[in-house]
Amino acid sequence: MARFGDRVIERMRKLGHPLCIGLDPYLDRIPPPFRRGAMAPHQPETAQAVEEFCCRTIDLVATDVAVVKPQAALFERLGWHGWRVLERVIHHAHAAGLLVLLDAKRGDIAETATGYAQAYLAPDAPCAVDAMTVNPYLGPESLEPFMVAAENAERGVVVLCRNSNLDSSVYQAVQTANGPYFMVVAASLSRWQERLAGGNTGWSSLGVTVAATHAQDTEQIRVALPHALFLVLGYGAQGASAREAVRGFRRGPAGLEGGIVSSSRPILFPAVPSDRGVQVWELGVRNALARATSELGEAVA
Amino acid sequence: MARFGDRVIERMRKLGHPLCIGLDPYLDRIPPPFRRGAMAPHQPETAQAVEEFCCRTIDLVATDVAVVKPQAALFERLGWHGWRVLERVIHHAHAAGLLVLLDAKRGDIAETATGYAQAYLAPDAPCAVDAMTVNPYLGPESLEPFMVAAENAERGVVVLCRNSNLDSSVYQAVQTANGPYFMVVAASLSRWQERLAGGNTGWSSLGVTVAATHAQDTEQIRVALPHALFLVLGYGAQGASAREAVRGFRRGPAGLEGGIVSSSRPILFPAVPSDRGVQVWELGVRNALARATSELGEAVA
Repeated sequence: MARFGDRVIERMRKLGHPLCIGLDPYLDRIPPPFRRGAMAPHQPETAQAVEEFCCRTIDLVATDVAVVKPQAALFERLGWHGWRVLERVIHHAHAAGLLVLLDAKRGDIAETATGYAQAYLAPDAPCAVDAMTVNPYLGPESLEPFMVAAENAERGVVVLCRNSNLDSSVYQAVQTANGPYFMVVAASLSRWQERLAGGNTGWSSLGVTVAATHAQDTEQIRVALPHALFLVLGYGAQGASAREAVRGFRRGPAGLEGGIVSSSRPILFPAVPSDRGVQVWELGVRNALARATSELGEAVA
Repeated sequence: MARFGDRVIERMRKLGHPLCIGLDPYLDRIPPPFRRGAMAPHQPETAQAVEEFCCRTIDLVATDVAVVKPQAALFERLGWHGWRVLERVIHHAHAAGLLVLLDAKRGDIAETATGYAQAYLAPDAPCAVDAMTVNPYLGPESLEPFMVAAENAERGVVVLCRNSNLDSSVYQAVQTANGPYFMVVAASLSRWQERLAGGNTGWSSLGVTVAATHAQDTEQIRVALPHALFLVLGYGAQGASAREAVRGFRRGPAGLEGGIVSSSRPILFPAVPSDRGVQVWELGVRNALARATSELGEAVA
């Protein structure tokens, strides 16, 4: 098995675009064909509806993208039934040949962070994924258990650095003597960029979030972390264009590369009549997927 | 039902101390009488051992403390079996009359954070707790769903602000034009301190973490947030004294008050011969508990 960074980039070179599908099963948006009863969050039928919706989405996108990104919050919202469904959805994605990046944004002091790292990144993790997102607020050492687990199992870690929601600037863009706060975080990650260094492709299995909506910040982060994978947020629903999304990418053998561009709502919940059966929704998903992959494909060409 | 801040403080006034027990079931430390087989994380027997250990701990401390604080990571580490056990442990604590503060350190952009808030704080939450810890890195608006849910259900939210692990200073104590970074976070929380304002006791259901090991920082945070509950970290295992732990508390009708002092490992894993059966461990827990409550009781007297 190759390292996460290499696996991602090699698949994206073949596909010709960096699109990743966010699996965000917002209960109130799940299309009618999948719904079960009142969709009360604690009912097992609701978890089953979420499972069917996510697995069908996976089937529709499996040959066209490299990575899916389940959002932990929306499974957790269903209680333990949701966790069981999350494990099944991850299994389904792996069986379909996809890489899974769990958007969990976990973080704790080192000893406890080990619990999270073992839950998702260790070789014997009960809910094993290829990579996960983590939150740095508790200090660089708090990230270490994730890095160690990722290194041992050739998995990846994506650290929250610069986010795309407008309001994230209130904390992340605060000025310090060493530049904006997100650069303090980015600068502290370079040792892990090296430790999780890539093989064939040169791309590290350390990732950081960057915002397509803050292109200049992305360029600063790229200077600090030349080999880190970018998880690019804000493309699509938050209004950034495909060209803005691939800022900070570098030219590789098959075009611009170096990051994963996430899109969720425009693909999962296409604007189609929602009461026309599952085929209409599927057609909407396929069309939205084709638009996004072609737009991003042109941007990296 | 009263608001979270009032419920905590009223119980602590009766008990005469602010101790909270952290439920941190580290697999490698669970005493032999509770262990089942190899304690492999994905085995249902392991989750059962964790459940029995936590429930027995709850029975031992229930009449002596106001709050228990389960650490989500260590349940999550067991996969979905662990989540089911977490729900049962929370139920057991509630049945024993305890308040439950879930140490989950969740955080996401607002729309997704709603998923976390609904999972733990909403009236119909599948895993309902009295309060939970959240991570502010994604911006003040990202905390809003937690505050709204807490307000509606008279629950509490504890925002990570200043932590006790040494290394947290690397990010949290970075200097900005408005003081150290943790003060940027603290200052942005005052509107929620008001929104979750207390009733009878005057203490808000908004909490923030403070470090017993950084007493001066605690005093700064108290100035910015005069009515916020403090979740005090670093007492016991990390070496801070009882007097350092209650810095930033104010005199109330029954002594100093205004925070929750957490201790976990010294209580859960007392230094007793581990192979002598459950009674020896129970005696160790009772002794450690008596020491901590008496030390903290004197500090607030």
